[in-house]
Amino acid sequence: MEKVFILGHKNPDTDSICSAIVYNDLKTKLGFNTEAIRLGEINGETKFALDYFGAKEPRLVEQVASEVSTVILVDHNERQQSANDITEVRIAEVIDHHRVANFETKDPLYFRIEPVGCTATILNKMYKENGVAIEKEIAGLMLSAIISDSLLFKSPTCTQQDVDAAKELAAIAGVDAEDYGLEMLKAGTNLSSKTAAELITLDSKEFPMGTARVQVAQVNAIDPNDILVRQQELEEAMTAFIKEKNLDLFVLVVTDILKSDSIALALGDSTSNLEEAFKVKLNNNLAILQGVVSRKKQIVPQLTESFTSKQTL
Amino acid sequence: MEKVFILGHKNPDTDSICSAIVYNDLKTKLGFNTEAIRLGEINGETKFALDYFGAKEPRLVEQVASEVSTVILVDHNERQQSANDITEVRIAEVIDHHRVANFETKDPLYFRIEPVGCTATILNKMYKENGVAIEKEIAGLMLSAIISDSLLFKSPTCTQQDVDAAKELAAIAGVDAEDYGLEMLKAGTNLSSKTAAELITLDSKEFPMGTARVQVAQVNAIDPNDILVRQQELEEAMTAFIKEKNLDLFVLVVTDILKSDSIALALGDSTSNLEEAFKVKLNNNLAILQGVVSRKKQIVPQLTESFTSKQTL
Repeated sequence: MEKVFILGHKNPDTDSICSAIVYNDLKTKLGFNTEAIRLGEINGETKFALDYFGAKEPRLVEQVASEVSTVILVDHNERQQSANDITEVRIAEVIDHHRVANFETKDPLYFRIEPVGCTATILNKMYKENGVAIEKEIAGLMLSAIISDSLLFKSPTCTQQDVDAAKELAAIAGVDAEDYGLEMLKAGTNLSSKTAAELITLDSKEFPMGTARVQVAQVNAIDPNDILVRQQELEEAMTAFIKEKNLDLFVLVVTDILKSDSIALALGDSTSNLEEAFKVKLNNNLAILQGVVSRKKQIVPQLTESFTSKQTL
Repeated sequence: MEKVFILGHKNPDTDSICSAIVYNDLKTKLGFNTEAIRLGEINGETKFALDYFGAKEPRLVEQVASEVSTVILVDHNERQQSANDITEVRIAEVIDHHRVANFETKDPLYFRIEPVGCTATILNKMYKENGVAIEKEIAGLMLSAIISDSLLFKSPTCTQQDVDAAKELAAIAGVDAEDYGLEMLKAGTNLSSKTAAELITLDSKEFPMGTARVQVAQVNAIDPNDILVRQQELEEAMTAFIKEKNLDLFVLVVTDILKSDSIALALGDSTSNLEEAFKVKLNNNLAILQGVVSRKKQIVPQLTESFTSKQTL
């Protein structure tokens, strides 16, 4: 049986890494020949989770088509977020919880998107559907993914299904979800060793919006000022990135994980779209986004609307 | 609770009509405010199934956005196969078994594609997953959809899951799948009252292939000669259609449901692509396609290959 890669998105977050490892565990137990891989560096939060539960990090693979002809995508479906050579391989399955866009196949596939807060919440169901018991390490990784995507159940993307799954998984993993979760999130906020260029690409995604190209990066912090003291350096890195990728807008969202608010740092020719979308005025390129913690639910749809509903003067 | 429409594709077949009715039954039992609608005329085969199991045909709705803001798609996802104003409404769910293409949402949704032979096979699982009992009439409609899409389990698109689901559903519906199925398929072949223009559009889909525009229509028959005695009239209708739609190729596939073979009637500038794809010579615009019954699996991929792999001389 030819090997199949299981991969999350570029600039992988904890859900993309953990869900690839977890789904690889399930597929292997069901008799398939799969390998979890990753498309980028592991961040501090994910490293904490892998170390805590004794899991090995997936292998970094830059070109998938040279090794396999078939892949399974977890935690993403848009092709620009996937491997650079994704169009050269067959996508057999997608397990995801994002919008569907820029995705096309020639043949039918197993395509499962559910409007829940985390891919791992869907995978938890799939273990049950297939009658496969969840081991302690695997439960810990799924719990970590749910805590990461839901910011400890505070994000508006978090559903009752995510909360229920986390409760079950914490019991199997033998940890207290709140205590473990805060420790894991804090591990992800120690970014002092990162360069500005690293900070803006750690958890960063490009979205086509109408005819515009928009990059939205997100960084979690215990105190946003820890990040924003480096504003000048960050702006230089963002400006270079905008030029390189020919972007219309780059928004860096610094999220206060204790207060559940964010501060946006926006650069590019289309910053007025951000102002319009959130009814804010940028001051020194910064704006407070009250109550905003979710890129998927509270930033991307609102920005997309401002780029597609009408021309911005 | 605002009403949500559930709809199958244009030129609806038995799966599109029955799956809309069936999913409406499930959603209603789960407490949602939904209505099954249809985008086109009911064919003879579907009418037989609805009459046999005492089901009412869904309401014909041409513009969905004037009545609802949210829809659920069954048995299709590509926007050109959906309601003309589909981009004006939110798609909350998709339950389908086709390739994914020309589909995009702003927000996450419930999107479930499985590589099985029929949408109803997926719906049968969903009743179980939700712990809802399947009534006799509903079982009969799901069975009818599976028989229709699989040509009584003979199509290469038919999977073990479809066969198993049909067996369960036949027991609930209280019919013999083979006897009922043949009767239903035969009801769909009584096309003597149809004009040639109706025959070529009853179950007809357009596919972009490379730079070419190709229309593939399919008609089932007990004896293909019942259709092909009208060859001259059919060719006139096809020629007019080719001109109107600026097509490169129009293939009318007449499928012998007893022998599981087809005869292709091909017109247009690119008929050599059909000859190349199936290694046949057209004679009086006709060619026998041995063992071919599935447009999705045995016609569209092969034709696409001939249009995209190289230039045809």
